[in-house]
Amino acid sequence: MIVNELYAGVEMGGTKCVCILGSGPDDVRAVERLPTRSYDQTLRDIEGIIERWRRQSGKIRALGVASFGPLDLRAQSDTYGFVTSTAKPGWRNSDVACRLERRFDLPVGFDTDVNGAALAEGRWGAAVGLSDFAYVTVGTGIGVGTVVGGKTVFGMNHTELGHIRIARRAGDKFAGICAFHGDCVEGLASGPAIEARAGVPAAELANDHPVWDCVAHDLGQLLHIMVLTTAPQRVFLGGGVLSAQTHLFTRVQKELSRSLNRYVEADELEAGIAQYIVPPGLGTMSGPLGALALAVDAHCRNAQRAFTPAMTVSQ
Amino acid sequence: MIVNELYAGVEMGGTKCVCILGSGPDDVRAVERLPTRSYDQTLRDIEGIIERWRRQSGKIRALGVASFGPLDLRAQSDTYGFVTSTAKPGWRNSDVACRLERRFDLPVGFDTDVNGAALAEGRWGAAVGLSDFAYVTVGTGIGVGTVVGGKTVFGMNHTELGHIRIARRAGDKFAGICAFHGDCVEGLASGPAIEARAGVPAAELANDHPVWDCVAHDLGQLLHIMVLTTAPQRVFLGGGVLSAQTHLFTRVQKELSRSLNRYVEADELEAGIAQYIVPPGLGTMSGPLGALALAVDAHCRNAQRAFTPAMTVSQ
Repeated sequence: MIVNELYAGVEMGGTKCVCILGSGPDDVRAVERLPTRSYDQTLRDIEGIIERWRRQSGKIRALGVASFGPLDLRAQSDTYGFVTSTAKPGWRNSDVACRLERRFDLPVGFDTDVNGAALAEGRWGAAVGLSDFAYVTVGTGIGVGTVVGGKTVFGMNHTELGHIRIARRAGDKFAGICAFHGDCVEGLASGPAIEARAGVPAAELANDHPVWDCVAHDLGQLLHIMVLTTAPQRVFLGGGVLSAQTHLFTRVQKELSRSLNRYVEADELEAGIAQYIVPPGLGTMSGPLGALALAVDAHCRNAQRAFTPAMTVSQ
Repeated sequence: MIVNELYAGVEMGGTKCVCILGSGPDDVRAVERLPTRSYDQTLRDIEGIIERWRRQSGKIRALGVASFGPLDLRAQSDTYGFVTSTAKPGWRNSDVACRLERRFDLPVGFDTDVNGAALAEGRWGAAVGLSDFAYVTVGTGIGVGTVVGGKTVFGMNHTELGHIRIARRAGDKFAGICAFHGDCVEGLASGPAIEARAGVPAAELANDHPVWDCVAHDLGQLLHIMVLTTAPQRVFLGGGVLSAQTHLFTRVQKELSRSLNRYVEADELEAGIAQYIVPPGLGTMSGPLGALALAVDAHCRNAQRAFTPAMTVSQ
């Protein structure tokens, strides 16, 4: 009998965190939710849960943290593992990954929440077998995890598509709410932006509220840009706004087709568009399972690293 | 003595084609330019040059074509190797790669002009040692070749960043000239768009003509999106407009910094921005050398493919 290795993950969101213990979607041992409070209090809460799980379950191999951003993921940076220029009060320039690594003396995988979710979809969800795809979340913020050639995109640092500026819908004069950019996609179409537009929370708005015309347009523009910048084979739309307002899927599909105007000739963007823009296969578990996927990867990287010196000695 | 293998490449542009014979930037044996005319006439001209080079120089290992797009690069497609939905008269849905392959019975590497140029910069130019970078051309059209993790991005098909829609500059009411999208980046800031805005060709405009404020803004928006979607470690700006109007470099750098508003904390985007947005290291030879790089890759793929059956037999 093969006993599964045990990992712990934390999906750190703007309003809540989800801690998960297990080895994959078919072996989830525990899930605990907590509100995202101040930096120190939230980290203490998370550490308490992991500490308890470690006492109760024996060996945990590695941790994974899939976090709201922006993050410093540059391996050589002095502030690697930090949440950096966030507008979230009290969280700016705060160490997450290294603090957990020191506390538990375990490898810690650390990436954006959306990169984690994209990895989980690729490993266990609706992107199995695909090499190029993207996971979009529309909730407290807007984020996109992009997989190119089987790996999450990472250049100078991680990507941040929620903060791209887009062509505005004709007549839409909403100034946007992003503290950095005003009317970037997140400033125009995230949950809080929708609430600022409509005066009531996104979840309480009827399907036919005029604000959805703007949101569908703005998400359609985000997708237009995604199709032309990384050409994903499929796009997953998740997060609180989309899961509560499923009518947005067909609206966004239409906006994308209209905007691309048959410039890209692909069945995915015409007859096949309903299979091109879809909900995540792991549903609301994409995020927490993303953290678990990061933990597995951190364990594997660590195991491979540990193997290298022995090889060197024998040469 | 190692004798360099010989390759032929064609950079196929909207107004002219450049044919090149050689093995790399230090071994260019011949370069010939011809105007891009009708599909059939242009292909005949190209075939004539390659045929002559083959007679004169002996064995050519492979061909590379770096072409204006959009192209069908999907390996399984019936129209692989075609120029597809171009607005260029007489070129829509026309076979390029397979025609040359049949004619010369040689492996043909085929990709977008900008992907070719990006590959050449990575192999021989100013991107040597970088894994993530992008090559932007601003000329007859606007195109971007993006390298992620050492490879050009390819998902559902190739990328087409010239046709993304962007946030418009306040007060800029120019409708744009793209036949598909009107005011996409290409429709707003390509050479013909600049001429349509100003009434005279881009090359004849003074540095302080007000149209450059719009062009710098629009290219700054393109770069804002590139930084957040693939986070290149460096961006090369080439093409006719940029090489004639070098004042645009600092203007675009400023627009990018202003637009990102310190959301991404990276020295590349602040003190280091003059080294972040730079001319291509291979100058105007990025394009033709890109075609040569595609030829080399096609030869290598073919050699590796040829090796596979023998391996299978021995098992």
